[in-house]
Amino acid sequence: MAKLSVAPTKILRVDATESIHKEDLLAVEEPLEIRVGYGAELEREQKSISITMRTPGHDFELAMGFLFTEGVIKDPGDIQSIKYCVDAGRHSEENIVRAELKEHITLDLKSLERHFYTSSSCGVCGKASIEAVESQDCQVIPSLEAKITPQMLATLPETLRSAQTVFEHTGGLHAAGLFDYNGNLIALREDVGRHNALDKLIGYAVLENLLPLHDKVVMVSGRTSFELVQKSVMAEVGVLAAVSAPSSLAVELANQFHLTLVGFLRGQNFNVYSYADRISL
Amino acid sequence: MAKLSVAPTKILRVDATESIHKEDLLAVEEPLEIRVGYGAELEREQKSISITMRTPGHDFELAMGFLFTEGVIKDPGDIQSIKYCVDAGRHSEENIVRAELKEHITLDLKSLERHFYTSSSCGVCGKASIEAVESQDCQVIPSLEAKITPQMLATLPETLRSAQTVFEHTGGLHAAGLFDYNGNLIALREDVGRHNALDKLIGYAVLENLLPLHDKVVMVSGRTSFELVQKSVMAEVGVLAAVSAPSSLAVELANQFHLTLVGFLRGQNFNVYSYADRISL
Repeated sequence: MAKLSVAPTKILRVDATESIHKEDLLAVEEPLEIRVGYGAELEREQKSISITMRTPGHDFELAMGFLFTEGVIKDPGDIQSIKYCVDAGRHSEENIVRAELKEHITLDLKSLERHFYTSSSCGVCGKASIEAVESQDCQVIPSLEAKITPQMLATLPETLRSAQTVFEHTGGLHAAGLFDYNGNLIALREDVGRHNALDKLIGYAVLENLLPLHDKVVMVSGRTSFELVQKSVMAEVGVLAAVSAPSSLAVELANQFHLTLVGFLRGQNFNVYSYADRISL
Repeated sequence: MAKLSVAPTKILRVDATESIHKEDLLAVEEPLEIRVGYGAELEREQKSISITMRTPGHDFELAMGFLFTEGVIKDPGDIQSIKYCVDAGRHSEENIVRAELKEHITLDLKSLERHFYTSSSCGVCGKASIEAVESQDCQVIPSLEAKITPQMLATLPETLRSAQTVFEHTGGLHAAGLFDYNGNLIALREDVGRHNALDKLIGYAVLENLLPLHDKVVMVSGRTSFELVQKSVMAEVGVLAAVSAPSSLAVELANQFHLTLVGFLRGQNFNVYSYADRISL
């Protein structure tokens, strides 16, 4: 059965006058592994060349585009066949694509490896990705007696935006801000990569001995992916708030570790996707 | 000398009534390599564990945050020292950070590798990243006699947005659309990752034998990174248009291969960052 691109979820929708439970839809995020080989009859090297978080759908095109833009193939005739690995176990079904190259295609694994760059943790299915976080001895994030208010949350985007020095000049950067429960900005970091902005912020907290961060709020520009929640869980962030939507796997991981995940924080409106207990409503 | 986070550039700013050349600022994007070791006196394994595109600034925090969120270190006391590798060659200066771990820290390289995921090409400095693209035998992208019009460009964001089926339901996805010079949508792909959305679109073009794409326009939601331009150069895309800002390295690569890079495409306004010759102004 083909994997779906959207997944239903229950959220708490908060505006200036009320908070209501409602059904919503999330973009699905799951890992895809791309393997290349030369067919069973040829005793040549086979290799997993990429694992990336993706939204299911058009997976063969994703693999073909990756192989083309990495210079492995030049046209569709360079591929013998492309299909899902169905023998990879229940959870991984349709998360592994295997392309068989024609015999004349040389696979320069060394050059390929040198060109990859790397980031964050994931497994070969959403479940394995979450288990990889569990295996890091991550704990359920503790809660304080004190709660944050919707009024305080509403101030965060403007505080973040007005403190973004590079963004002001370029309009081009992701930001991550560290706030206390009263909405005071402690630190802000910017980067072209959202995962880098958060790594810089957590690195600051490590160096300043501020960990764990369960009495803090982290606000990020843009969307929340699995990767951002994974990093937040490692640092035991209490509340992770974002301007845009989270992915399905981000919400799943946040639920598991009792991280309060807020999305679509705009004006006095926001959605709570997990563990609303830290917010006074 | 510390690397800067912003870089000046010359753009062509187009609105409904005029187009003017002006100075603008870009967010800098360059690779950072993170290496770990145990100091010169200890004959233990040393390793490059991550290369990621980042905006220079707070590089030691970025490395600390990465090491912490990947579970390598637990607190700042686990690190003996952290500094730039200054012996790595002129171009790489301050693009390689080396952390010396205390002797009691065990580095589980195998688990670390298993958790990395990979994407796209890069070298250890911006120049090497561009040379890595050149070494793929990429050519300067040819131009057609026909030009695109600002009026056609102005229609692309709305066409893209109204065709985005998953975004409509979730608000959470990046999109990449393939258009002809008249603004007709040929294909659209969506994903949580912007590089995946473009890989899917290029994979579609490979499978449909539409390459090279120098008579096409690709429109992406969000920002343009080095990675997106690299993929576009491989597919010989004529015009790459985006809703938001490009990075410095994206513009540099686009210039080198005569890719027409458009940013901040909103209403009838947009900026041209490279090779404006394909647009009738």
